[in-house]
Amino acid sequence: MMQKTQKNNLIYGKNPVFEVLNNDIKRVSKIYIQQGIFLDNRLKKIIQIAYDNKIIVQKTNLDKFLKDFDFENGEKPNFQGIIANIAPVEYVELEDFLKNKKEGFSKVIILDSVQDPYNFGAIIRTSVAAGFDAIIIQNHRSCPISAIVEKVSSGAINKISIIKTSSLSSAINTLKKSDFWVIATQMQAKDNYYEIDYTDMNFALVMGSEGSGISKTILNLSDFVIKIECDFESLNVSNAAAIIMFEALRQIKIKK
Amino acid sequence: MMQKTQKNNLIYGKNPVFEVLNNDIKRVSKIYIQQGIFLDNRLKKIIQIAYDNKIIVQKTNLDKFLKDFDFENGEKPNFQGIIANIAPVEYVELEDFLKNKKEGFSKVIILDSVQDPYNFGAIIRTSVAAGFDAIIIQNHRSCPISAIVEKVSSGAINKISIIKTSSLSSAINTLKKSDFWVIATQMQAKDNYYEIDYTDMNFALVMGSEGSGISKTILNLSDFVIKIECDFESLNVSNAAAIIMFEALRQIKIKK
Repeated sequence: MMQKTQKNNLIYGKNPVFEVLNNDIKRVSKIYIQQGIFLDNRLKKIIQIAYDNKIIVQKTNLDKFLKDFDFENGEKPNFQGIIANIAPVEYVELEDFLKNKKEGFSKVIILDSVQDPYNFGAIIRTSVAAGFDAIIIQNHRSCPISAIVEKVSSGAINKISIIKTSSLSSAINTLKKSDFWVIATQMQAKDNYYEIDYTDMNFALVMGSEGSGISKTILNLSDFVIKIECDFESLNVSNAAAIIMFEALRQIKIKK
Repeated sequence: MMQKTQKNNLIYGKNPVFEVLNNDIKRVSKIYIQQGIFLDNRLKKIIQIAYDNKIIVQKTNLDKFLKDFDFENGEKPNFQGIIANIAPVEYVELEDFLKNKKEGFSKVIILDSVQDPYNFGAIIRTSVAAGFDAIIIQNHRSCPISAIVEKVSSGAINKISIIKTSSLSSAINTLKKSDFWVIATQMQAKDNYYEIDYTDMNFALVMGSEGSGISKTILNLSDFVIKIECDFESLNVSNAAAIIMFEALRQIKIKK
């Protein structure tokens, strides 16, 4: 179930390494620091946390070490002199999530074939910011949790349940049986996203890929279909998700 | 004033090339297509538009052609077999923008040191979607309009005025003299972004970089300072901008 390629076991950059140390330290198995690099306060702090938690810190020639790596999008990233070897994110089972659900209404987001790592990472970050409880993705046709996703999520990935399912339809049916309402987004919808009341229900917001949108099967399973009416043809999926998630949060906050 | 490096004169990928042909064809001087590539409908359509508009289409070995290019972020992008040579975006002068301003209230966004090309591109796209009239950036400490920006903006860059200024403070003063209200965003602000009325004024929304936020000088010039209250420490700047811009649009739409 988990991705075990070399690529997915690495994260790079000072902030991503710092964030995973702070939020989910048990994922970190080893840290590599560029030989001869100047240790600024951020790097010193990282080394300190690693030492305190008995995580090996090895100085090495990172360029040589990473010579044969096959980077995402062919991109050779800016390592900022630091790499960490980490365990993959542990996925949560939908049944376990529902069993351990917090009191009160719950909000989850379902991503139907979102494949761009920048969008996926940004959606994770914004989901946590908007107080969402889980992100549901599909085994196939989803963006894997890669170094870019970890970096763009800015540590948020360690603060939310990620649920991976082989079938979004059956996950949606399970949610509906557990008293969740399903809200799909589609450009041709009749209702605007701010015309529904998000405050008195458990809900699952479904966002589709930019290319193909949400599949017909899932649209048919949905209780609401909403659009973001706008002056330009379409929005980036992470911005679209942010707009709807924060409209829900706005409604919840002003009701309190 | 305009960026004239090779890098900024190229865009790549089927959608970006198609969008610039459709939205601002005079920017396109030449198109290169990978030798021997299968011409799908999208590529055929691009070639057709080019021929109809007397734009040269040259078949070439793109890998060889781009061998010595210095790509943004060190990233070798996915060309999808197509590259276009384009003129840089033409910046608009603030004075000209104000002189030719459309009837009714106007909305602009000011970016203070936003340097990430993915964020900049997404903000351009969302600004157009939310009906904003201009984006103001600084000469220094701004992300240049690169191939990634063009690609992420998804053609929106050809549909909005981009104003480049040597001093954001003096641009803000000019805006204030032209009856614009200035709204800055800051995590420590007292008011939430949905607590102000965006419907009865010209306004300029100022977004800062993720690292350093908005400079003190600009905060002092602002009429309102707002925050996006959230459960996680911070948001990606493009998502934060999207949330506020669409709250403004929501208020405007429900008032109509």
